[in-house]
This record gives sequence, structure tokens and C-alpha cells, in this order.
Amino acid sequence: MAELLSIPRSVEWNETHITILNQQKLPFQTEYLELKELEDVWDAIATLKVRGAPAIGMTAAYGLALAAQQYDGSLAEFQKQLQNARNYLASARPTAVNLVWALDRLVKSAAKATSVNEAKTALIHEAIRIQVEDEDTCRSIGEYALSLFQAGDRVLTICNAGSIATARYGTALAPFYLAKEKGIRLHVYASETRPVLQGARLTTWELMQAGIDVTLITDNMAAQTIKTKRINAVIVGADRIAANGDTANKIGTFGLALLAKSFGIPFYVAAPLSTIDLATKTGDDIPIEERNPEEVTHLSGTRIAPEGVNVYNPAFDVTPNELITAIITEKGIIRGNYKTALPTLFASATK
Amino acid sequence: MAELLSIPRSVEWNETHITILNQQKLPFQTEYLELKELEDVWDAIATLKVRGAPAIGMTAAYGLALAAQQYDGSLAEFQKQLQNARNYLASARPTAVNLVWALDRLVKSAAKATSVNEAKTALIHEAIRIQVEDEDTCRSIGEYALSLFQAGDRVLTICNAGSIATARYGTALAPFYLAKEKGIRLHVYASETRPVLQGARLTTWELMQAGIDVTLITDNMAAQTIKTKRINAVIVGADRIAANGDTANKIGTFGLALLAKSFGIPFYVAAPLSTIDLATKTGDDIPIEERNPEEVTHLSGTRIAPEGVNVYNPAFDVTPNELITAIITEKGIIRGNYKTALPTLFASATK
Repeated sequence: MAELLSIPRSVEWNETHITILNQQKLPFQTEYLELKELEDVWDAIATLKVRGAPAIGMTAAYGLALAAQQYDGSLAEFQKQLQNARNYLASARPTAVNLVWALDRLVKSAAKATSVNEAKTALIHEAIRIQVEDEDTCRSIGEYALSLFQAGDRVLTICNAGSIATARYGTALAPFYLAKEKGIRLHVYASETRPVLQGARLTTWELMQAGIDVTLITDNMAAQTIKTKRINAVIVGADRIAANGDTANKIGTFGLALLAKSFGIPFYVAAPLSTIDLATKTGDDIPIEERNPEEVTHLSGTRIAPEGVNVYNPAFDVTPNELITAIITEKGIIRGNYKTALPTLFASATK
Repeated sequence: MAELLSIPRSVEWNETHITILNQQKLPFQTEYLELKELEDVWDAIATLKVRGAPAIGMTAAYGLALAAQQYDGSLAEFQKQLQNARNYLASARPTAVNLVWALDRLVKSAAKATSVNEAKTALIHEAIRIQVEDEDTCRSIGEYALSLFQAGDRVLTICNAGSIATARYGTALAPFYLAKEKGIRLHVYASETRPVLQGARLTTWELMQAGIDVTLITDNMAAQTIKTKRINAVIVGADRIAANGDTANKIGTFGLALLAKSFGIPFYVAAPLSTIDLATKTGDDIPIEERNPEEVTHLSGTRIAPEGVNVYNPAFDVTPNELITAIITEKGIIRGNYKTALPTLFASATK
């Protein structure tokens, strides 16, 4: 049964090329692109054809491994070409931490090689390892998260912390795929997530591919939906989790956490340990990026507000730790007391 | 100074025609239409060129008065033609309570006439009276509401309870126009109000016409905005207020009321007494209309979600009375204890 479940993958290694799902065209068109040249990979990352931190890292890693297969000359020359390619790909999305992390992991894996051929093989293996590890991480997060739900539960989410943002399964969406694999019925309510509509465009699409019950609402319907549809829990992903558990995530998350508290239902954050940044003490230390006003005043290129209107467009918000019932990681579930529990979990995981 | 303030009007009587603001084209185009025939008036109401309960009522009243100027024959024949026209206009938007109310008020005003000419004049006077009364009502609501704000306050609103929905000033937006007339600076934050975007399209537009500070946000930015912009209060209009104060209003209102409570800021409902329905005991007795899923899956005719996705699209929600700091009417402000205070206010007002 697990094999029959159609969970969309956004990145696939195919020896002579990388196949990626063009997320820019979703949900209107399911277009897969074959990337062969370094320039194609750079473009796919820069123009958001691939999105989601793990998916970006994987694509870059495969891109670097693929390009390196064509390099020749001495090992020293090879390493130099590799470094140039690494720098080029890293420039595709300068703020994506996962991009640099994946590229540097590859460069490091090739550094130990004693021949060009060995280096080439090492790069491919390391890129595959990154994908396999991410799938394992997501699956583990999903298993822990699923332990918090019961058959028939109705769960609200925002944005897209899904399969297509990761190797497979996603983070906040992972429990729904695992439930489906196990024949447990859950019902997902997806908040559309203005201004960029990741919920409406991506979360609905990928869950529908796998035959999971999903209902779309606009963001301002959350309170009414929690009340009338008797929502059991809210689950979201995370962009960055501070050492005290404060969580930065897509704009709207903080509001959902406050609503969850008002209604007395649990609010869960599902995220890999790599999202936890112990160097960031609290949410106050997380800068909130403000994005282009046109994201709010326009929709699919069409203006929806008066010319010249003032706009406030924060991309993220920070949910304070006291509103988070539990943080679900690949190494287990933490409930409260994040300030001491997060470093402990981190230390035990990286031993 | 008051005279210089440009507060948009949506309906104007011009003896030979009615001028209406085509709200369907806002904010992209400021188009005024001249309605001369009964069919034009019917069409303007049916196709939402005019919207907002008081504005619809006014347009219908003027439309009936204008059409009647052409009728002749005996007084009995005149009354019959008038009744036919009344029935025709009433069919333009069958659920609009204010429409029938205004039309019946006109028919009644003509019933006392002893000649056709007298009846014609009575109809025009009654229609003008409806508009004047509504402007007085809105101004009074605005004066009471303004007494709750201080210079420099930042106030969040949703949907459009504004000047163009009424004779002038609006309800929830009235205090901002009066503040501007008095030189008191307030800053309005307008929630865009998905799915139909009345906040983005209408509230921003009309406040900008009058030079009032307004900032547009998407609905899911409310919590972040209340926190970082230090919002002092939330003010909204109402579609129907039950005898116990429970208030039905545009979807998203209930969520804002819960957020206001979480942040410890006041949540105000501004509405005329005509919105209070003492026959409706509590909010549980107010049916919540679910509208076309395409409002959610499409925007300005463009699809934004997968074909065939499930949608929940409630048009309204009900804010329970305990979340409402005060209800502001043209006859005064009620704070709590709505169950006894509302009928008392009603009785004293209609004496």
C-alpha cells in the first residue's frame, strides 16, 4: 500500500540529469524540468522553480555533483573548478542557509579523495546521502507527529511545510502522508497563506496528489473553521527556532497560535533539528524581513489595491514559546521547557 | 475645513437622474453612473455596482421616486404603477433587508397623498429624508466612536463599513472622517478581507480620497501588526446584532476579536440601531451563508488553487458578546450587559 501512495517529489537524481518539479507552475501545470548544466541549476534555484530549504540544498548538491563529472585535469585543478562551481551556485539565493550548507558538505566530501575519479564518485554519493538523510528526518518527524493525532482528527496548517519542500513527506505535512500509508484518516484544513498563497497553490495540490482529505480556507476563516469544523490541532513548520523555543515561521503562524490558545487546542511546530539555532537566544533576536509591497497589492500580476497605498508586508512572524504545545523533531517531541530541553536534545543527537 | 474634506459619496440625487459610484470598478477606476430608468436602478443593485445596506436602500428609494415622476392617470392607477415598480426593484437583491425597508417607506409616504402630484413630491421628499437620516446616523456613530480614541491611535478594521456603503461617513470608518475634520490624526490599518477583498479595494480607496493615513495588510498579518505597530483598538461594522450582543459580520471579524482579547486591546462594533435584531435571541440563531467556492479558488477571474479542491467559504462569522468591548450606535455606546442594555436603548430611541 505504501508503494501505491503518490507523494510528490520535487527533486530526483537521474545520473545524466536532475529532474525537478517546477513549483512556479503549480497547481496549474505539473511540469518537470531536466537540469543538465550548472546554469540550469542556478536558474532553477534563483527563480524559485525549486523552493523549500531542504529541496534547494538537494538540488544544489546534485547540480554540483553533476557538473563535476565533466571536469578533468589534475586533482588540484579539479578541486579549483569545484570551488568555482560551488561559489557560483551559492550565489543563486544568498540568504538560503541550507544551500551553502549542502554545497560545503559536497566540497568537503571531495576533499578527502586521492583521485579525480574518486572525488567524482564521492560527490554523487554525498548528494544522494543528503537526500536520503532528509527523507529519513522527515519520516521520523512524521512518525512522532502522528503519535499526537487520532483517527478522524481535523488539523489546520499554514503555508507549505510539505513533501515538495523536502526530500519527501515534508515536516508539518509528514504525519498526513504516514497516516494515509497506515490507512488512518485525517482531514487537513489548509490556510491559503497570503500574500504568496503557498497553502492554496502547493499544500492543497500535494495532499490531493496523495488522496488526502484537504479543505482550503482563506486565512481569515481560521477562527470560524476551528469552531465550526471542530479542529483538533494546528501544526506548522518553522523557518528558525531560537534556543528558548520561540519560532519564526510564515506570516500568520503567530495568529494561529493565539487562536489555538483561545480555543484550547494544541499548537505544534514540526521541524528538523537543523532549524534550531541555539546561537539565537530568543525570538527578539530574529530579524523579520519585510518584502515587496507588490506581493500584497498584486495577485498573479493583477493589481487588487489602489495605486500608491501604504503596505506592511512582513514575511514572517515569531510565535513565542509559551504558545507552542510541542516542538516535534526527528529525535523526539519536546513539550515546554525548551530552554533546557532543546540544547539537551541537540547534544544527544549530534554525539 | 470640513467642506474641503473629500469623503466619497456613493449615491446622489440630481432631480433628473441618480448618480452612483460604480463600486465594481474600484479601486482601479472612479466611474460615476447616471441612472435614469427603473431598469438601470435594478441592474445597479443586482450587479453590486452599489453595495452596503444603507446605500442600496437609498438607491432603490431614489429609483422609485424618479420612476414615479413619469406615471400619470388617476391616483389609484398611480398607486398601482408604484406598487409594481416597488415589487420590481425589491427583486433586485432579495436578501437585502434594507432594500425592502426603504421601498416600503416610500410607498407608505405616497399612500397619504390626495393627488398624483402630491404623491410624486412626497416620494422625492421621503427618499431624501432616508439619505439625510442615514448621514445623521453615521455622523452620530462617528462622534461616539471618536470619543473612544485619542490622537495618534492606530486602529485596525476589516471589510468596508465605510462612507460608500452608507449615505456618508460609514459606521466603523466614521470616526476616522470626523477625526480628520477636527484635525485629529489617527492611523487606520485595513485588513484586505479575503475572499472578496473589500478592505484592499474599498476601505483603502475611500480613506485615501480623504487623505487619511491607511496601511493595507493581508488578513494573516493581523497578530503581527497588532504587536509590532502597537495597535490600540479594533473597530468593525455589523451585518446583524442579536439581542444579547452577539454580532454577525464579515468573515474574519471573530478572529480579530479573539486576537484583540489576547493582546488586551478593545474590540468595538459600530452599527446603527437598525442592525440590531431583538427577535434574534443569540448568535446561534443567525444562519451563516456559505458562498461560491470560486470566491476562494479564484481572484479577479484567475484561478489560484487546484481544480477540484474542497473549499469552506463562510461569508460571515459571529463574534460572541463577551469579546465585544462596546457596541457604538447613533444613540450612544453600550459596554457589556447587552441583553438588558440593547432593548432599553431601542425602546428609548423609538419612543
